[in-house]
Amino acid sequence: MFRIDQRQENELRPVTIETDYLMHPEGSVLITVGDTKVICTASIEDRVPPFLRNSGKGWIAAEYSMLPRATAKRNIREAAKGKLTGRTMEIQRLIGRSLRSVVDLSVLGERTIWIDCDVIQADGGTRTASITGAYVAMVMALQGHVKKKKIKSLPITNYLCAVSIGIDKEERALLDLCYEEDAAALVDMNVVMTGDRELVELQGTGEESTYSRAQLNAMLDLAEKGADELFLVQAEALKEILPFKKDETKEV
Amino acid sequence: MFRIDQRQENELRPVTIETDYLMHPEGSVLITVGDTKVICTASIEDRVPPFLRNSGKGWIAAEYSMLPRATAKRNIREAAKGKLTGRTMEIQRLIGRSLRSVVDLSVLGERTIWIDCDVIQADGGTRTASITGAYVAMVMALQGHVKKKKIKSLPITNYLCAVSIGIDKEERALLDLCYEEDAAALVDMNVVMTGDRELVELQGTGEESTYSRAQLNAMLDLAEKGADELFLVQAEALKEILPFKKDETKEV
Amino acid sequence: MFRIDQRQENELRPVTIETDYLMHPEGSVLITVGDTKVICTASIEDRVPPFLRNSGKGWIAAEYSMLPRATAKRNIREAAKGKLTGRTMEIQRLIGRSLRSVVDLSVLGERTIWIDCDVIQADGGTRTASITGAYVAMVMALQGHVKKKKIKSLPITNYLCAVSIGIDKEERALLDLCYEEDAAALVDMNVVMTGDRELVELQGTGEESTYSRAQLNAMLDLAEKGADELFLVQAEALKEILPFKKDETKEV
Amino acid sequence: MFRIDQRQENELRPVTIETDYLMHPEGSVLITVGDTKVICTASIEDRVPPFLRNSGKGWIAAEYSMLPRATAKRNIREAAKGKLTGRTMEIQRLIGRSLRSVVDLSVLGERTIWIDCDVIQADGGTRTASITGAYVAMVMALQGHVKKKKIKSLPITNYLCAVSIGIDKEERALLDLCYEEDAAALVDMNVVMTGDRELVELQGTGEESTYSRAQLNAMLDLAEKGADELFLVQAEALKEILPFKKDETKEV
Amino acid sequence: MFRIDQRQENELRPVTIETDYLMHPEGSVLITVGDTKVICTASIEDRVPPFLRNSGKGWIAAEYSMLPRATAKRNIREAAKGKLTGRTMEIQRLIGRSLRSVVDLSVLGERTIWIDCDVIQADGGTRTASITGAYVAMVMALQGHVKKKKIKSLPITNYLCAVSIGIDKEERALLDLCYEEDAAALVDMNVVMTGDRELVELQGTGEESTYSRAQLNAMLDLAEKGADELFLVQAEALKEILPFKKDETKEV
Amino acid sequence: MFRIDQRQENELRPVTIETDYLMHPEGSVLITVGDTKVICTASIEDRVPPFLRNSGKGWIAAEYSMLPRATAKRNIREAAKGKLTGRTMEIQRLIGRSLRSVVDLSVLGERTIWIDCDVIQADGGTRTASITGAYVAMVMALQGHVKKKKIKSLPITNYLCAVSIGIDKEERALLDLCYEEDAAALVDMNVVMTGDRELVELQGTGEESTYSRAQLNAMLDLAEKGADELFLVQAEALKEILPFKKDETKEV
Repeated sequence: MFRIDQRQENELRPVTIETDYLMHPEGSVLITVGDTKVICTASIEDRVPPFLRNSGKGWIAAEYSMLPRATAKRNIREAAKGKLTGRTMEIQRLIGRSLRSVVDLSVLGERTIWIDCDVIQADGGTRTASITGAYVAMVMALQGHVKKKKIKSLPITNYLCAVSIGIDKEERALLDLCYEEDAAALVDMNVVMTGDRELVELQGTGEESTYSRAQLNAMLDLAEKGADELFLVQAEALKEILPFKKDETKEV
Repeated sequence: MFRIDQRQENELRPVTIETDYLMHPEGSVLITVGDTKVICTASIEDRVPPFLRNSGKGWIAAEYSMLPRATAKRNIREAAKGKLTGRTMEIQRLIGRSLRSVVDLSVLGERTIWIDCDVIQADGGTRTASITGAYVAMVMALQGHVKKKKIKSLPITNYLCAVSIGIDKEERALLDLCYEEDAAALVDMNVVMTGDRELVELQGTGEESTYSRAQLNAMLDLAEKGADELFLVQAEALKEILPFKKDETKEV
Repeated sequence: MFRIDQRQENELRPVTIETDYLMHPEGSVLITVGDTKVICTASIEDRVPPFLRNSGKGWIAAEYSMLPRATAKRNIREAAKGKLTGRTMEIQRLIGRSLRSVVDLSVLGERTIWIDCDVIQADGGTRTASITGAYVAMVMALQGHVKKKKIKSLPITNYLCAVSIGIDKEERALLDLCYEEDAAALVDMNVVMTGDRELVELQGTGEESTYSRAQLNAMLDLAEKGADELFLVQAEALKEILPFKKDETKEV
Repeated sequence: MFRIDQRQENELRPVTIETDYLMHPEGSVLITVGDTKVICTASIEDRVPPFLRNSGKGWIAAEYSMLPRATAKRNIREAAKGKLTGRTMEIQRLIGRSLRSVVDLSVLGERTIWIDCDVIQADGGTRTASITGAYVAMVMALQGHVKKKKIKSLPITNYLCAVSIGIDKEERALLDLCYEEDAAALVDMNVVMTGDRELVELQGTGEESTYSRAQLNAMLDLAEKGADELFLVQAEALKEILPFKKDETKEV
Repeated sequence: MFRIDQRQENELRPVTIETDYLMHPEGSVLITVGDTKVICTASIEDRVPPFLRNSGKGWIAAEYSMLPRATAKRNIREAAKGKLTGRTMEIQRLIGRSLRSVVDLSVLGERTIWIDCDVIQADGGTRTASITGAYVAMVMALQGHVKKKKIKSLPITNYLCAVSIGIDKEERALLDLCYEEDAAALVDMNVVMTGDRELVELQGTGEESTYSRAQLNAMLDLAEKGADELFLVQAEALKEILPFKKDETKEV
Repeated sequence: MFRIDQRQENELRPVTIETDYLMHPEGSVLITVGDTKVICTASIEDRVPPFLRNSGKGWIAAEYSMLPRATAKRNIREAAKGKLTGRTMEIQRLIGRSLRSVVDLSVLGERTIWIDCDVIQADGGTRTASITGAYVAMVMALQGHVKKKKIKSLPITNYLCAVSIGIDKEERALLDLCYEEDAAALVDMNVVMTGDRELVELQGTGEESTYSRAQLNAMLDLAEKGADELFLVQAEALKEILPFKKDETKEV
C-alpha cells in the first residue's frame, strides 16, 4: 500500500536548495521539500550576547516564523499577539542548538550568527527543512567571511541535516511526513544528524500514544537513509564536498 | 544628469507581478519592483469584526511585515520585541484604508478580507508595492469567490495602485525612489490612486525640510504617469481588463 | 447653506492659546480650538537618543494622549491596555516630524525636546491643535533656555501650524472640521505649514471615497487661509513676531 | 515655627472645586489643592463586570494617571512603558474602594461608574485630592441620572473626602502635606472619612521610620479637622447640603 | 460566642517558623499560621538599584506570589497572564517598605536583599505571615553575612512582625482572621509593628463599610497582644534574643 | 570510578512522594528526588478549552515554575518579566503531552485537569521529577472524582514516569543526573515511559556534541531500569497497584 502521495515508506519528497536567494544576507537559501518552502538566512554580527563577552567564543541564535498564510487556515501573527507561542520557541531553540553542534565557536570568535527561518509555505516538516536549509545558508555566510579574511578558517566541523519520521495508524514507519500524514501519525519524531550519522537531537513524541524500542530503531534506520540523501543535496548546493573526516573517538 | 540607477526622473523600476505564488491563500502574488519583493496574500474569512456584526457589510484588514534580513542590516522581529513599531502600524492602516476605497463592502457581505504583505527583500517603496500587489491578490481571491458563487458579483469598483515620488537634493522630482534615493530625499511622498486618476491617499512629508505647492504638483504629475503604467501591469497579471467606468459625479 | 455650527466654509473655530498653563514644564500652553482643548508641554532634557550620541545634534520626540472622557464615549486608557493604538503612534510621529522641520537641530545641540500633547476635551482636529499649540510651548521652552544662556540662539527657523480640511457629502471643501463634520466627511486632510506657506506634511485620506486634484487644490487654498490666521494667534501668544525671513531657495 | 509655605500645622492649603469642567462626562470637576490640580470625571456605563452580572448590583471602578509633566521631572507615560506601576495600581484601588463605601450599589443597579482622576499638576496629596474631587463628580453624575429618571433615588449614603497628614523631622503632626513636606516626612498617612467622621481607609506608613499610637491619634485629630473643612467645599460645589443622617448603629 | 474555629477573639492561630527550609538561599523559612503556609527566602546580592549607586546604602526589595492551588479555587498564574495584579504589587511594596524600617541601610552597604514570599497554602493573613516570616529569613541571611565578615555588624535595629485584625458582622474586633472570617469582615486591618510596639504600617479598610476611632483603638489593642506573641515565636526561631533596646526618642 | 555523589552509574537518587501535601487541590504531592523538590498539584475543572467544546473529550494542561531561590543563584520571576521563557514553555508542553498519553480523554469527559508543578528546590531533573510526581497527583485527583461518582471509572490507561540520562565527559552513560553532572554532560536525555516500557517521549540533545546509536541504546537501558524503580515508588504512594495490563497490539 502506497502513501497518500504515492511515495514509498522510505522515500523523501523532492528537495531543492536555491542558494543566494536574497541580496542582503551574508548567506541565504530557499529550501523546498515537497510543498514546504522555507527562506533561511544567515547574518553575521560582530558581537555576542552578554554571557559570552570576553570569552573569545561566538554564538548561533535562531529565529523561526511562518507567514500567516503559509498554512491552509490563516494564522494570527505572533507580532500581532505580542508574544511567541511555545511551539515557535521550541523550534527556535532546536535550530540554534543543532547548528551549534557542528560549529567550532572558538574559531568563529566573538561573533553571533543569526539564523532566520521564515516558512512561506507549509506542508509538514518545516522545522527539519529549516535546519537542513539553515545549515547551507550558514556555511555560505562563513565561507564569505573566510574569503574576506575575517575568519581564518571555516569553523564548521561536520555536515548537518534534519529529517522527520513517524509511525502511522497502520504501525508503519514513514520517512519525511507531509502535513496530512503528520496530523494523523501516532508517533512523530525529528532527528538531527551529522554527516557521520551521529545523533545531535532526537525528539520522539507519542501524542496520546506510545512506541516501542523496536519502532524507535525502525524510525532511526529511515532517518539515516533520509539524511544520507539530504547531505548530497546540501553538497550540491554548496558546490563542493566539505572536507570533514569522521571523528573516531565517538564510539562507546 | 541621470539617477543613481541610470533611470530617467519619470521612470519606474521594472515591475512584475507573479500570481498564484502560494498554494494555500485564496489570492497571492509576488510583486517585484526593482529589487523590492513583496509576497501579498488575500484570505477571505466568513466573519467580520464586532463593530460590523449584523451590518450586512464586510471589512478589509491589512498586516505588513518584513523578514529580518529583507534589509541591509538585520532588523529585530516585531514578534520578538512583543509589539509593532509605529511605522508598521501606519503602513498597515494605509494598506487597509486604501483597498477599502475600491471595494463595495455591502456587496462583499459579512466577510473579512485579510491582506498580508510580507516584504522578503527591500529596496525602497515597500508600502506602495504592497498596495499595488495586494490589489491583485484581493481581486483574484474575490474572483474565486464569485466563481464558487459565494458572492454574486465582483465587489470591486475601480483599479487601485500606489507609487512613491520625492524631491532630491537637486530639487528634482523623482518617480519611484529606490532605497538610496529615498534615504537622501528632502521630500518623500506616497500616492494611492484609482484607475481614473482620483486620489485615495496622499502623504507627503518633508523630514527636516519643506515643499511648495508647485513642487507638490510636479510630484503629482509623476504619480499619474507611474500609476498609468502600474495599472497596465495589474491588468496583465489579472489577464483581463476589469470593466469599470469612470465615475462622472466626482468633479468639483 | 451654513455649516452645522453656523460657520462659513472657510472659517476657523475660535482659537486661543493660554501660555504658562502649568508650573513645572519649561514651556506649556492650553490651546482651545472651538470645543477641542489640548494641554501641550515642552520639556528639555540634556541628552539624546542613542542614534544621535556624539553627533552634536538634538532631537524632538512627541507623545500624544487623550483623557478617557475627552470624548463622548469613554475610551479605555492605553496604559490599561498595555499598548498604544496605531492612531496614537501615527499622531505622535506626525507631531515630532512636523516640529523637527522648523528646528535647527545642530543649534539645539545634544538635547531632546519632549513634546507632550494631552487632549482633555475633543471635538475634532486634536492632532492639528496639538501641533499648533506644541509649537508655541516649544518656542517658549527654547526662549527660556536662551535666556539662561544654555543655548546661544533660538534654534527655530520658521513659524509652524497645522490645520484640517475636508470634503463633505455636498462636495464642499470645509476648513477646520469639528467632530460631527469630520465623522461625516468624504475626505479628511491635515496640512502642516510653515510661516511662508511651505508644506511640511500633507495627509489626505478618502476613507471609502476618493478626491480629484481640483478638490485637493481647493482644500489647500483653505489650508493657507487658516494657517495665516493661526500664525497670528501664535504670534500674539508669544508676544512677539519671530524674525524669520522667507527662504528664497525653495521655489522649483 | 511655621511650615515652609507659612501655614499653621493644622491648616489646609486653599481648595477649590470647579464643577462641569468638561463637556462630555456625566460628571466632571477640576479640584485644586494648593498647586495640585486634578481633573476628576465620572462616567456611568449600563453594564457591570462579569462577577456582578445578574446580581442587581452596580460597581465603581477608578483609574488614576499623571500627565508626564505634572511633576518637576518628566515621567515616562505608563502607556509607553506598557504597564501600570505599583503606585498607580494602589491609588486606583484605593479610590474605587473608598467611593464604593458611600454608594448603595443595589440602588445603583447594574451600572458601572468609571472614575477617572488625571493629575495635570502635582504638588503632593494627589490621591487625596482625587478622592475628594471624584466624590463630587460622582454625585453630580448620579444626580443627572436621577433627574433623567434612570435611577429612582440618589444612591449616595454619606459625604466622603480624603486628607493627608504626616509627621515631620521635628516630630510635628502636619495637615495636608505639600510635595516638599511629603518628601521629607518621617510618617505619611492618608485618611478617607465619611461626613460623620467614620473612617473608611487609614493608611499610615513610616518609610524607614515608625510612629507611636499617641502620634497616630494626633494625626487623626488633624484629619478630622481637615475633613470637616473639605466637606464644606464639597457642599458648596454641589450647591446643596446632601440630606444624610448619622448612622447610629456604628458605635462599638 | 466563639469564633468559627473555636478561638477567642484575641487569640492567634498556632504559629510555627521552620528555619533553613531550603538549601540554596542565604536565609529561608517556612512559616505556618493556622493553615496558611508561606516559604520566605532572603537572598543577598552585591549590588543596588540604579538610584542608590555610589550612595553607600543598600536596599530591600520584596516579591510575593501564590501557587495556583494555594487557594480553594485555582488562580491563573501571573506569569501566564503576563502581568502582576494590583493586589500583588500592593503586597510586595508593603513587605519591602516594612522590612526597610528596621534595617540600617548604611550598615548594610551597597547590597540588595531580595525577599521572596511564596504562599504554598492560603487561609487568610498571607501578607502578614509573609512579613513575620521574611523578617526571620532576612535576619538569618544577615547573620550569615556577619559570620563571613562580609558585613561588620548586624544592620537590624528592631524586631518586626505583622498581624491582621478585623471587625466582624457582630461588630466584634477579632485578632488574626482566617479566610472565612476575612471574607465576611466589615473592616480589614493589617498592622506592622516593631518590638517596642511602634507602628510601621497601618492599613485599615472598610470595604462598603466604615469604622470609628473607638473601633480602631480596639483593633490596635488586639494587634499589640498578637505582635507580642509573634515576637516570641521569632526569637525562638532565631534561637536568641536580639539585643535591641527601646528607642526613647520616639514619644510625642 | 564513582559519581560525584558516590552513586553507581545506574543508580537513582533517593525518591520519595508525599501525598495530600496541600489542603485545597484535588490531588497534590511533594516529590523529592535527591535535593530536587517539586510540589505537583492536579486540579479538575468542569470545562474544556474552546477547541474541545461539545467533543465529549477532556484535556490536560500543565504549568511549571520555579521559586526564584530554588536555584543557587536567584532567578528573576517570569511574572516580573511579563513572559515565560522558552525553557518553561517547552517543559509545560512536555508535561501535558506526556500525561495525556496515559489518560482516556473520552472517559474523562469535558473536563480539564490542570497540572501545576512548582519547583521549590532544584538540583537537576526538575522536569522528570515533575512528570513522575504529577502522575501521582493526577491519579489521586481522578480517584477522588470516581469516589464522588463524578466520573464512572478511572480514565487512566497505564503507569507513567520520567527519568533523565546523560553521557559524561568520560563517555559514561549515567542515570538520573544531579545539577552538577547535568551541567557538565555531553549529552542530556529525558525519557518518559509507560508501565510496560513503551516510550512516550524521548528527547536527547547533544549541546555542542553528538552521540551514536550505541550510546542511545545504553542510555535507554538505564532509563528502563530507572523507570521500573520509579513505578514502585508511585505504586507505594498510591497505596495500590493500578490494574493495567500490557497492551499487546503495540509490537512492531
